[in-house]
Amino acid sequence: MPTKKLGSQTVALASPPSIIGHANVVGKKEGEGPLADSFDHIEQDDTFGEKSWEKSETAMQKMALASALDKAGQAASNLDYLFAGDLLNQCIGSSFAVRGQDVPFFGLYGACSTMGEGLSLAAMLIDGGFAQFTGVVTSSHFCTAERQYRTPLEYGGQRTPTAQWTVTGAGAVILAKDGPGPYITHVTTGKVVDKGIKDANNMGAAMAPAAYATLTAHLQDTGRKPSFYDLIVTGDLGALGKDIIRDFFHKDGMELANYDDCGTMIFDLKKQDVHCGGSGCGCSASVLTGYLLNGMRAGRWKNILFCPTGALLSPTSTQQGESIPSICHAVAISTSK
Amino acid sequence: MPTKKLGSQTVALASPPSIIGHANVVGKKEGEGPLADSFDHIEQDDTFGEKSWEKSETAMQKMALASALDKAGQAASNLDYLFAGDLLNQCIGSSFAVRGQDVPFFGLYGACSTMGEGLSLAAMLIDGGFAQFTGVVTSSHFCTAERQYRTPLEYGGQRTPTAQWTVTGAGAVILAKDGPGPYITHVTTGKVVDKGIKDANNMGAAMAPAAYATLTAHLQDTGRKPSFYDLIVTGDLGALGKDIIRDFFHKDGMELANYDDCGTMIFDLKKQDVHCGGSGCGCSASVLTGYLLNGMRAGRWKNILFCPTGALLSPTSTQQGESIPSICHAVAISTSK
Repeated sequence: MPTKKLGSQTVALASPPSIIGHANVVGKKEGEGPLADSFDHIEQDDTFGEKSWEKSETAMQKMALASALDKAGQAASNLDYLFAGDLLNQCIGSSFAVRGQDVPFFGLYGACSTMGEGLSLAAMLIDGGFAQFTGVVTSSHFCTAERQYRTPLEYGGQRTPTAQWTVTGAGAVILAKDGPGPYITHVTTGKVVDKGIKDANNMGAAMAPAAYATLTAHLQDTGRKPSFYDLIVTGDLGALGKDIIRDFFHKDGMELANYDDCGTMIFDLKKQDVHCGGSGCGCSASVLTGYLLNGMRAGRWKNILFCPTGALLSPTSTQQGESIPSICHAVAISTSK
Repeated sequence: MPTKKLGSQTVALASPPSIIGHANVVGKKEGEGPLADSFDHIEQDDTFGEKSWEKSETAMQKMALASALDKAGQAASNLDYLFAGDLLNQCIGSSFAVRGQDVPFFGLYGACSTMGEGLSLAAMLIDGGFAQFTGVVTSSHFCTAERQYRTPLEYGGQRTPTAQWTVTGAGAVILAKDGPGPYITHVTTGKVVDKGIKDANNMGAAMAPAAYATLTAHLQDTGRKPSFYDLIVTGDLGALGKDIIRDFFHKDGMELANYDDCGTMIFDLKKQDVHCGGSGCGCSASVLTGYLLNGMRAGRWKNILFCPTGALLSPTSTQQGESIPSICHAVAISTSK
């Protein structure tokens, strides 16, 4: 069966690639949250022994990738292609992590949707016959993000109620042409959606319409109902964005019973002072590569729709009065082909 | 014939996609250079009527994409996928240009190699059966780059002899499953190479080893000699990087007679005070979509190897004393399949 284009945004992969390795590394705060048991490595020192936060983030990506490759029983040099991206200016977290990996590299910028973007392309390159093995790695770090997007930590800035807490974490996934699964069966690629939200401290509201658009396209393209999935999970909409998505679907006459958001899963919102929840490329990446994929392997879920969301703004665009273009990429993951 | 993986970094596309539209937009200085006749639109006002340089860059991308789509006779909504990226923090030149385009979008960060990275993925998604039409657009702007990477224009900073001049320009390419060509026949994906160069004002020297590595891999993987190509063209190595590449090949016993660099082609290095030449994503993109593809259509060249190069540094990595990781992606373009 050839690969089938379904509707305008979705492809059903003819030979769904298998996830043969996945791993993550997180910081201290994430290790104190409800998903602590699902992380491969919890570092108590968020510097990761490095002299700058940016180098710490690079160190996390390297560790996550090395661990995922180890679990997959592959060397980096066996990868046909590696996809990576992060939130730092010019994506230096990734470029410096990939330096020395001896693997053909495609750099991505999809903000917090990067793991979804990377899995989409990595899966298509295998299904298209261009690769046997591909990898995806992404990260975020609370301290690099605060300095770059908001204020240096030392300023002790106040956070608004709708703010989210950038996850210190990295996640990596290794895909193979053949393997025991879980499999990536469908890829729905997002369009840029911008409903005019200008508050950079309310990214959940900015990104929710993009998530709604991609989810709706996925359901229309595949003819599936939300109930087909044991779990539909967005990346980092947080508590407010999660409510907005539910409202959108409610207006369409659909109740998303089996829906959650990585940003609200990774922290205890009441006890950990993270306001609306976690965010950052590392949020959905570390939840996917731990709690979600471990759960699929353990038989907890058979079908998951993984939908990380990205806010494609910059401090400069915000200073210039611009609203926040957003995107969401959906990847269907199943324990059977 | 199925798609064939050649060596470790190259694929030969089974059904080479056709370039069915290409266009560019450049600024005043580029329009005063030796390639002036090859540009679709030369704007005398580098603000492009916008209130910030970042918005000017977005305007260029929109114009280039619209023009390429027009030449291809396609609406943006007919594209299955659009790839875009630029040099701005969080790639806002692209995100804001794609906003409102109604097309599934993959954001890239490959620094000045972006047009090569985008063409590689856009061609593979068509050849792999995932798309009928894909697009790639990228840009750079002298004024956004100076402010972000060096100093605001008003400071009147001195430039070092090895410095390059960021091209104000955008280029867009539309690919289709079928068409009259030119065709993308081979894709060689670069690895990150870093030989320890730390001078951010000498990117030619930093990127030359990456270009050499990718070119060498391409020639080894395909079994072709440099003379197979009517023209081998790197992205923005400039005068110094160009000499370095020639030296590398000379040491290997090969003379690159048919070799040039977009950074030395787009400006008159003696008269236009650009020191080592042009640079930026828009440099190779505007030379490809004008001079090179127009020349192929006019019968001047049959086979071109297009090898844009990217320096994956940031001001932060330079301030932290880091060297410059670099990459080069090669795309073989031919008038016959």
